[in-house]
Amino acid sequence: EIVEWIERFFTSNNHVKTLIGKKVLVTAGPTIEPLDPVRYFSNYSSGKMGFALAEAAALAGAEVTLISGPVSLPTPPQVRRIDIVQAEEMKEEVLQALPQMDVIIKSAAVADYRPQKIYHQKMKKVQEELTVILEKTPDIATEVGKRKLAHQLLVGFAAETQDVETYALGKLKKKGMDLIVANNVAEPGAGFGIDTNIVTVYDQEGVVKAFPKMSKKELAVELITLIGDRLHGK
Amino acid sequence: EIVEWIERFFTSNNHVKTLIGKKVLVTAGPTIEPLDPVRYFSNYSSGKMGFALAEAAALAGAEVTLISGPVSLPTPPQVRRIDIVQAEEMKEEVLQALPQMDVIIKSAAVADYRPQKIYHQKMKKVQEELTVILEKTPDIATEVGKRKLAHQLLVGFAAETQDVETYALGKLKKKGMDLIVANNVAEPGAGFGIDTNIVTVYDQEGVVKAFPKMSKKELAVELITLIGDRLHGK
Repeated sequence: EIVEWIERFFTSNNHVKTLIGKKVLVTAGPTIEPLDPVRYFSNYSSGKMGFALAEAAALAGAEVTLISGPVSLPTPPQVRRIDIVQAEEMKEEVLQALPQMDVIIKSAAVADYRPQKIYHQKMKKVQEELTVILEKTPDIATEVGKRKLAHQLLVGFAAETQDVETYALGKLKKKGMDLIVANNVAEPGAGFGIDTNIVTVYDQEGVVKAFPKMSKKELAVELITLIGDRLHGK
Repeated sequence: EIVEWIERFFTSNNHVKTLIGKKVLVTAGPTIEPLDPVRYFSNYSSGKMGFALAEAAALAGAEVTLISGPVSLPTPPQVRRIDIVQAEEMKEEVLQALPQMDVIIKSAAVADYRPQKIYHQKMKKVQEELTVILEKTPDIATEVGKRKLAHQLLVGFAAETQDVETYALGKLKKKGMDLIVANNVAEPGAGFGIDTNIVTVYDQEGVVKAFPKMSKKELAVELITLIGDRLHGK
């Protein structure tokens, strides 16, 4: 497998190793927010897009740290992986790694709400209805935006089901991102679990590039190339 | 892999193929109950116990149907697998398969509550708090108990975090089960995700057998042997 990886390293599309000497942080997967010892609240992120980005960044020569929620994917070669479960842990790990990074790619689908109260015993099935109060999780993207250093490139993701451009540009500006990768997860060929994606990348000025439907692995290479160009002021 | 399986078939511990000619239904894994296109409600079941039971039943000569929620496990050899997502689909598949079965092993952790309202667009992160009303899912075990034929053996599971015996015996009686396999999922070495389990089996009369901590694969063989004995009136 290592041999195969070395071969890919030297024959990969991005011939110029645009990220050599760069430290890249990628977040991936969902988070799980418990309600009791048995039940939880989560989302459909499979981690595929984030793992593909971590792999592509490593192939482009970067030193990659991957912070991942619970997924069933192998760690890409030459990537340092940190596993977390809840949004709170994701926040701690991201903020700790942040100062050393040149590029931060936030592709994780961090839960934005969690049960306000976590029960320590399994809730019994007695009532016909259960009311669960969900509270906001810490807003990691906003916190990262605030602490961002001048040389750091911050790349976010927006998975929406309607008004994708409006939401994506709003998020980009509000959270101080340099680039946002937006997709409509309700569109066939895009979104959670599957192996393909259809995205448009925006910066503060508007559309940077609209990509056609392609595999998440191919798209990851394209996005890493675009990030490399941005980093080198192209 | 087939060769390996055939070898295991002829050398497996239960030399007498106690389930030859028998049709066994195993349910496994969690169910996922959506809140919107992105978010869902689920539980920690990995499906390991159910998949091990399906494999052990096939090794004992049974014709096995495995109805599984979303898990990342390979289908055991010689097992017919039906994938479902929500409790509602689990109910439909189980009730359809039921009349043909000799043994029904309900090891799935079917969600007992689901969001009452499913939103068709991703809910936006505007409010500080979200109130989610959960309603009961269809009670598959009770329905199966009602339709059970005289020759059918019904085996349930109880995953509890306290008062395990009380809850297990209550569930056994209420749902017309012949055997219930109970564990305390809060106990180290038992429960979700991990490869070992610690269970006690009960029937209407009380404790049938308390098993020490063992791998889910070993335990599955023990449970299938016990089920085979029960089926043959031992």
